[in-house]
Amino acid sequence: MALSDVYIIGAGETKFGELWDKSLRDLAVEAGLEAIKDANIYSRDLQMLYASNSLAGTINEQSNIAALAADFSGIAETHVPAVRVEASTASGGAAVREAYLAIKSGEYDVVMVGGVEKMTDIYGSEIIDVQSSILDREWESFNGATPAALAAITARRYMHDFKVPREDIAMIAVNDHANASMNPDAQYRNKITVEQVINSDPVAEPLNVFDCSPISDGASAIILASDEYRKKNRLDGIRIVSSAMSEDYLALHSRKSIYTLESARIASKQALERAGIKKNDISFLELNDSYSIYGLLELEDLGFAEKGKGRELLGEIKINGSLPVNPSGGLKAKGNPLGATGVSQFYEAYLQLKGKAGQRQVKGARYGMLHNMAGTGATSVVHIVGE
Amino acid sequence: MALSDVYIIGAGETKFGELWDKSLRDLAVEAGLEAIKDANIYSRDLQMLYASNSLAGTINEQSNIAALAADFSGIAETHVPAVRVEASTASGGAAVREAYLAIKSGEYDVVMVGGVEKMTDIYGSEIIDVQSSILDREWESFNGATPAALAAITARRYMHDFKVPREDIAMIAVNDHANASMNPDAQYRNKITVEQVINSDPVAEPLNVFDCSPISDGASAIILASDEYRKKNRLDGIRIVSSAMSEDYLALHSRKSIYTLESARIASKQALERAGIKKNDISFLELNDSYSIYGLLELEDLGFAEKGKGRELLGEIKINGSLPVNPSGGLKAKGNPLGATGVSQFYEAYLQLKGKAGQRQVKGARYGMLHNMAGTGATSVVHIVGE
Repeated sequence: MALSDVYIIGAGETKFGELWDKSLRDLAVEAGLEAIKDANIYSRDLQMLYASNSLAGTINEQSNIAALAADFSGIAETHVPAVRVEASTASGGAAVREAYLAIKSGEYDVVMVGGVEKMTDIYGSEIIDVQSSILDREWESFNGATPAALAAITARRYMHDFKVPREDIAMIAVNDHANASMNPDAQYRNKITVEQVINSDPVAEPLNVFDCSPISDGASAIILASDEYRKKNRLDGIRIVSSAMSEDYLALHSRKSIYTLESARIASKQALERAGIKKNDISFLELNDSYSIYGLLELEDLGFAEKGKGRELLGEIKINGSLPVNPSGGLKAKGNPLGATGVSQFYEAYLQLKGKAGQRQVKGARYGMLHNMAGTGATSVVHIVGE
Repeated sequence: MALSDVYIIGAGETKFGELWDKSLRDLAVEAGLEAIKDANIYSRDLQMLYASNSLAGTINEQSNIAALAADFSGIAETHVPAVRVEASTASGGAAVREAYLAIKSGEYDVVMVGGVEKMTDIYGSEIIDVQSSILDREWESFNGATPAALAAITARRYMHDFKVPREDIAMIAVNDHANASMNPDAQYRNKITVEQVINSDPVAEPLNVFDCSPISDGASAIILASDEYRKKNRLDGIRIVSSAMSEDYLALHSRKSIYTLESARIASKQALERAGIKKNDISFLELNDSYSIYGLLELEDLGFAEKGKGRELLGEIKINGSLPVNPSGGLKAKGNPLGATGVSQFYEAYLQLKGKAGQRQVKGARYGMLHNMAGTGATSVVHIVGE
């Protein structure tokens, strides 16, 4: 028996932003029902629910949110199993990967992956502390390191060693906002300039507030199906061409190089090999730029530039460039509701590859590479999707 | 290509209890290294780590604990992917199931599943509140319901409808303590009597403190391998004969019957069907008796007695009875470190089926059924393991 190919047959998403009138469960149900409708199936057709979420146990004091989502979307009635997958900010990619493997195993034919995060219920130092739980608590956060502080340390060293101008780092955020201005789901739809990034309020030198992804609420959902199910039910779909995942030390200080995302290097190499394609075949990238510096590092570590030379690609990252980056608006401007972020990369890829991305459509898109990363690079999940 | 059978080739476990001198990471590493040693492989042979944990985000303020465990056990060096699986108190069974499916998919040949929980770092009303996050927070916990309160409501109604004497419910705890007295890893190794249970301090009427599983620290780990890997490396193993998972409404008030564990009924039926065996072939059960009442309900809903008649089996649940229950000591006496609990059921089954369970050995054990459950029954994972 050949292992089945896996297809995305539907996708849904809420707006991302400060959604104070919606609860965690509201968001999860909204995205899930939209995905079911888009796939043109019934809720009762689902055989499994994978939920991606990072911080609901703490922010919303709710565990077992997969069961919660199943209950409130009406699928608990059919007793469909539901489980949460967590790898901090890489939870979404990791959940899609589990669903992909489960379909490959022959266990299920049609599965939902839903990602959700409701982060604006707490604020100030409290949300920063909870976000810091994605780091090594004993070795990093207890001593005052935050995700922003560690990204800043990486940026400083990187700028120093490779003589990278501050402006080049800002360009990642500028590109995100330009693209998000064309995405109705994005948290920020205003365009910004390099000067605005550089003059915005400092967070952790050299990174300013416009270098940092926001605190967001939001949910995304996709429906995955085996090729057999898709054909039998005459459903359209976008193929998950390959999936790979890799790991590095959790704490930044243990890494061999603090500006090399080894987990991304390994996972992207595996993903390309498994897909049987070359990096030049990739039509667009969705990067995990929780901080602008990571966008630049990822261009390098995903294999598109040599270390220290990601900036040479900055002329090509616009929607109509040769290597469009974050057509969705990326984590900086579309928003970064942690558990939803990795799933939302698939939502964007699904639209792009179906030619339904509207104003931000990448012309002739054939393959997208999606990189979802935990914290400072502890976990990387890379997927390639295509027609 | 036939899908591979999946074997447990090694297992390790820490003591369960109030382990104030050990941290979350200490426990995870201790169990993991013991499992690797027991399997007679090297850490570098592992291809994936599934971590089961329920509450570390809140209690230990640590997310991405799969990455943490990989880092501290030395396997981050080989960049082996690591992900956490969470389904509240059913996390362990759910994590084993993900690993089982991943091997079936052909993606991996040898995988670790590690479960860990460090619960005694907080106490009193704080730990009760955090434990209540496994319920529906908005509909149950915010209004004051705790896991114990809901178990008590179920017990009262069950006792009333089926004329079940209080003593019969206590018998589940008595049996657990008798078995745990022979388990060196158990949190409580003292035998207790029905009278002691009934006279112990009340928690939520009719349940007393001796009806409730304790707050525990602990970790368990197992190594799973494909049949090919096992044969090639001439390793012994215990087969995971079948795996099934089902779901019910998260909130107890939504269930059709508050003393019927519909998720357990469905999952156990599927597990038996997939295994191609009958309930009479089961040599022992590991039940999810977080509260004694659930032990009685599970005897019924796993298919061993009609509803209301679980008590008729109480004469047979001892180690040398016809249906030994919880040879490990169960959640009540072995302990209940949430994320470790489901994995520790496999640790016990591994010992039993290899004939290495010492004083508590079930004679002639051929098949074990393991039931791991979330909260009041929202999620059930049932596995059958055998030679």
